[in-house]
Amino acid sequence: VVEPPRQELLRRLNRAPSGTAALVAMRGDLLGLLKERPHLKAVDADFRHLLYSWFNRGFLRLERIDWRSPAQVLEKLIAYEAVHEIRGWDDLRRRLADDRRCFAFFHPALPDEPLVFVEVALVNGIADRIQPLLDPEAPLGDVDQADTALFYSINNTQHGLRGISFGNFLIKQVVAELSTEFPQLEHFVTLSPMPRFAATVRAAIAGTPGTLDRATLERLLAEDAAVLCERSGMSESPEALLALLEQDHAAHAEVTAAPLQRLALAYLTRFGDRGRAMLDPVATFHLSNGARLERINLQADPSPNGLGQSFGVMVNYLYDPQEVEANHERFIEAGEIATSRALARERKKLAALLPQA
Amino acid sequence: VVEPPRQELLRRLNRAPSGTAALVAMRGDLLGLLKERPHLKAVDADFRHLLYSWFNRGFLRLERIDWRSPAQVLEKLIAYEAVHEIRGWDDLRRRLADDRRCFAFFHPALPDEPLVFVEVALVNGIADRIQPLLDPEAPLGDVDQADTALFYSINNTQHGLRGISFGNFLIKQVVAELSTEFPQLEHFVTLSPMPRFAATVRAAIAGTPGTLDRATLERLLAEDAAVLCERSGMSESPEALLALLEQDHAAHAEVTAAPLQRLALAYLTRFGDRGRAMLDPVATFHLSNGARLERINLQADPSPNGLGQSFGVMVNYLYDPQEVEANHERFIEAGEIATSRALARERKKLAALLPQA
Amino acid sequence: VVEPPRQELLRRLNRAPSGTAALVAMRGDLLGLLKERPHLKAVDADFRHLLYSWFNRGFLRLERIDWRSPAQVLEKLIAYEAVHEIRGWDDLRRRLADDRRCFAFFHPALPDEPLVFVEVALVNGIADRIQPLLDPEAPLGDVDQADTALFYSINNTQHGLRGISFGNFLIKQVVAELSTEFPQLEHFVTLSPMPRFAATVRAAIAGTPGTLDRATLERLLAEDAAVLCERSGMSESPEALLALLEQDHAAHAEVTAAPLQRLALAYLTRFGDRGRAMLDPVATFHLSNGARLERINLQADPSPNGLGQSFGVMVNYLYDPQEVEANHERFIEAGEIATSRALARERKKLAALLPQA
Amino acid sequence: VVEPPRQELLRRLNRAPSGTAALVAMRGDLLGLLKERPHLKAVDADFRHLLYSWFNRGFLRLERIDWRSPAQVLEKLIAYEAVHEIRGWDDLRRRLADDRRCFAFFHPALPDEPLVFVEVALVNGIADRIQPLLDPEAPLGDVDQADTALFYSINNTQHGLRGISFGNFLIKQVVAELSTEFPQLEHFVTLSPMPRFAATVRAAIAGTPGTLDRATLERLLAEDAAVLCERSGMSESPEALLALLEQDHAAHAEVTAAPLQRLALAYLTRFGDRGRAMLDPVATFHLSNGARLERINLQADPSPNGLGQSFGVMVNYLYDPQEVEANHERFIEAGEIATSRALARERKKLAALLPQA
Repeated sequence: VVEPPRQELLRRLNRAPSGTAALVAMRGDLLGLLKERPHLKAVDADFRHLLYSWFNRGFLRLERIDWRSPAQVLEKLIAYEAVHEIRGWDDLRRRLADDRRCFAFFHPALPDEPLVFVEVALVNGIADRIQPLLDPEAPLGDVDQADTALFYSINNTQHGLRGISFGNFLIKQVVAELSTEFPQLEHFVTLSPMPRFAATVRAAIAGTPGTLDRATLERLLAEDAAVLCERSGMSESPEALLALLEQDHAAHAEVTAAPLQRLALAYLTRFGDRGRAMLDPVATFHLSNGARLERINLQADPSPNGLGQSFGVMVNYLYDPQEVEANHERFIEAGEIATSRALARERKKLAALLPQA
Repeated sequence: VVEPPRQELLRRLNRAPSGTAALVAMRGDLLGLLKERPHLKAVDADFRHLLYSWFNRGFLRLERIDWRSPAQVLEKLIAYEAVHEIRGWDDLRRRLADDRRCFAFFHPALPDEPLVFVEVALVNGIADRIQPLLDPEAPLGDVDQADTALFYSINNTQHGLRGISFGNFLIKQVVAELSTEFPQLEHFVTLSPMPRFAATVRAAIAGTPGTLDRATLERLLAEDAAVLCERSGMSESPEALLALLEQDHAAHAEVTAAPLQRLALAYLTRFGDRGRAMLDPVATFHLSNGARLERINLQADPSPNGLGQSFGVMVNYLYDPQEVEANHERFIEAGEIATSRALARERKKLAALLPQA
Repeated sequence: VVEPPRQELLRRLNRAPSGTAALVAMRGDLLGLLKERPHLKAVDADFRHLLYSWFNRGFLRLERIDWRSPAQVLEKLIAYEAVHEIRGWDDLRRRLADDRRCFAFFHPALPDEPLVFVEVALVNGIADRIQPLLDPEAPLGDVDQADTALFYSINNTQHGLRGISFGNFLIKQVVAELSTEFPQLEHFVTLSPMPRFAATVRAAIAGTPGTLDRATLERLLAEDAAVLCERSGMSESPEALLALLEQDHAAHAEVTAAPLQRLALAYLTRFGDRGRAMLDPVATFHLSNGARLERINLQADPSPNGLGQSFGVMVNYLYDPQEVEANHERFIEAGEIATSRALARERKKLAALLPQA
Repeated sequence: VVEPPRQELLRRLNRAPSGTAALVAMRGDLLGLLKERPHLKAVDADFRHLLYSWFNRGFLRLERIDWRSPAQVLEKLIAYEAVHEIRGWDDLRRRLADDRRCFAFFHPALPDEPLVFVEVALVNGIADRIQPLLDPEAPLGDVDQADTALFYSINNTQHGLRGISFGNFLIKQVVAELSTEFPQLEHFVTLSPMPRFAATVRAAIAGTPGTLDRATLERLLAEDAAVLCERSGMSESPEALLALLEQDHAAHAEVTAAPLQRLALAYLTRFGDRGRAMLDPVATFHLSNGARLERINLQADPSPNGLGQSFGVMVNYLYDPQEVEANHERFIEAGEIATSRALARERKKLAALLPQA
């Protein structure tokens, strides 16, 4: 077994005070150079090998983050939250209040750096809208009445650890922690974005090769084509839907609901498995972790970002400890996507529209 | 020895979870009622007796507060800072940066409540202006070059502990801590307000009985009367000085400097010991702790509050570990006020103007 | 309200480093002098007043002590255990193993001093013998099968805090802690000594005035007099019983069982309430805390100390959270002693023998 | 870069609770099998690769161990001390008293396992005998008068981490810690055993091939041959010396001193560099760390173990922060051994006796 001398060099650098932090930062820089300087890929392989060993889950510490945490750690949450921006300390305090939980993994060599963190709301019923959870003035919920742990934001924080995944372990351990603290919880479920949904739809309308083809799109909208065209004054259903969604989303909610729901489900289930390329990254993450696709929520995120990314649609992925393992294996081995019964019925109807599914 | 049954009641209340916090809050409320219901003074005496025993310095823990402290504690600093307002978390972070120190006393039964805290800047030379210390954008000082620990804000936080003094012990222990951490420090000195200076001067001008008499005031200003009157267009020196100070303080700085300095020194040294009633509370605090009056700084606090309270004048009180004990005793026993040599010379000149001194 | 100046002196001494420890030690010394110098009682009253306020239960911290605790604390257990001696570190380790719990109250000013500690065994069924619990080689019990928390040793450690009682609070909080950690526990019960039982019996036989009178003793033994005298070769039942107990306790167990059981019950229930003077101090402690007299165990402690103090008899006092409050009040107000049903029946029979009961 | 799948398996095992401890134990077992099953060397290489990365010095925490440490950690010292046995808790307490220091490296995944620990005595002057340091009744030294930190025992504890060296880093960091805590310290020096000295001498006498040859031995003893033979009644100097050392070491101390000193120096300096095979492992450790051979102490360890291993001889290796780096490089690159001036003079005389040196 011949050890690459570069690995030994990295291990020696790691011995210095704050060595690990410096190496993670170096890898971050290195990743930015790879495109232009592909010969550095061998260097990256050595970095990745060591970081992957060093940031083994066995060395990570789960910690709850709350208002008793050091300001030094809390300001990192503000800086790193990329899913639903934290707009200052008052906003942060609400997200750490008694009806919420925030957990993170820490590595002993980076004691003030949450590597990945998840924000959870303890609520009654599976939430279908994100805004009430983000409102800093939201009244405090009654934790004793909560039957659902809603995971509404998960963030990786270290660019230099790209490709070394912690989120899966984090969710599993947080489910275990919350089950112990609140035995009455029945649902562990996310409220998640679909970050590339709108872009995929727009690309399909524009006929960009390599994504969803326009014919599929039209088939999905056929049923509603007349009313969409009439309401929008356009002659083609894809453009008609897009116009209504972009003009005044809420005003046309009734008309766009059915086609948007159909489109979202098709998107999340890969338009009939036509290719991984089209797959939503958040869906991939949760489905490969063993969650099931539970519900698609229209009008769930009316923020400019939410409308821009996904026409306001959000998704609940549900982690059922009983079925997580089986779901995970079926997804990994056969690409099978677990869904709720309601979505399974909708999916059958889709199959009729999309012959190849 | 007969124990008042009320004390036993209070001790029993204290056994409950958060009992101590509740009792401190109750005493706070009680203090607010004493004026209207003087018969409650006996109740207050029992409260005071127990709180005074319970919050004995032997039970307090000195803790450094910095950016690693829990947000729960840090937000208390923002709430409690009454000398120089902290305007949010960015402001707070600057005050806890590496060239600053903040220390507080905590009681084990109130773990998140700083009872008293002091803010210190590590600087080179004894600062004579407060604004640079409060600027959130101030560049970070070089701690290795610092020869002075400047105490620029001390706050008691618990209304319910009124009359139970911690500040003295805090300053002494912080001096000891800083001496150990930074052996190169030469000066331990405050930059302090004179909260009743302007009010005392205005009352004297108005001839309000019970304060400084107008004759004394005129004697102090005699030397500068001509130029003050000329510049202000007024015929009497007290009104002339006041007008210049209140019109545009900075513009007339040259003319008002000498009389203002004289007036401030007379005020701080009790206008020749004519009465404790006139005494400045901040001066009393530091002088009775054994500090010496080191320097009077004009134009030291040009904020509206600083101008309103003291025409912008601030004071350095210096704690010299060698002389603190002796100063304290001379002040307590004989009312003697220790001063720097420079101020001692000025004070001699004052004595000539104020025959009774 | 005039404050005794001595209290202020004590408060000032308390401000010094380790002041509280020094004052507790001083009171310990003072207590030793009171008999010879009764005029010091006023000094003790001031000590007691302050220590009673300072060691208020609201300031005490319950802490679990186990093999992860500092050696500095653990060696105190070895030193302070006075009920069932700990014979070194191996013995101690067994008492802190996974099927045991040890809890103590600490005061923040004496961080390494357990003020009072209790040793608990998690067992199945209410234990009636102490030896298996003290055996350092005892096999580890299965905590999941435990239905009983057996409190087998409670020790106050600070002579200087005599008269300031913590044991009651400790037992209540430990019951609460254990209920949370082990919801399956059904019984919270002690296995306690009767430290003055044998001495009381011997004094009665000798006819020492002021204790149990000999006539009562004889009435209690009348039923068994013939067999006792025959077996021992003595002519009087009290001497006969004592001789059998002291010759070879185990050999005569069958013969002595009934009279010993009767005598012990009479002793614990004050021989028909004839006087508090005769009361067992351990019984007083638990009964006034609201426990009930659950069971008397013969042959429970065959150690020389156990035989010498109480002819090997030990007692279970049971803390039933449902009835503790009512028991406590009935005991304090009316001197009523709560017992198990079995002991209530035995007690009725005693009443027939002891007319004054 | 192809990753061996076995490494991935080990990383996955490491994710489980206590996974790291289990893997270290597995490697310990594996090492025991290598001799019989050499084909497992490839498995060991993967273990070693991962453990070497995981136990990088950057992840280790230096911790002081004292009487405040958890019993759970302290009992490990008793178990692991292999140089100078700790005979129970009283012995341990003396070694952790105020005139001693004990430091260890811990890995975050093995929080109760000191990986390597060093015992230090703060003394005045460089100690030349071990017994006073091991005496549990030794009076407490005055730390303020100490000018020397004497490292008298260093132990690696984890068989499964064999070949992954921490001792070097430990000594360097402990020197730094002690310099900060006690600026008055002038010497950082060991009192070390020579574990294979006696065995090497005995093998040479017996003429075992592969060690020191008998001729060299005789040359070293030539000067003293007459007196050794006379005193022992033997005819050959090597046997004579050995007999005197083994009969009654102390009685013949005067006669054996010079030859024993010469022999020890020759041994420590490799008998004139004739081969690494003869090298003392403790000498190799300290010399390669950059220490210098300071002094050879006869009669330093009269315990049976000390006499058996090294005829009671012990060695001081001195770490001078100024020269450690240079010594280390000269030793590694050229095999040069740094010595004190006194030993350098003795060494010159040896060179005359051993022509090949």
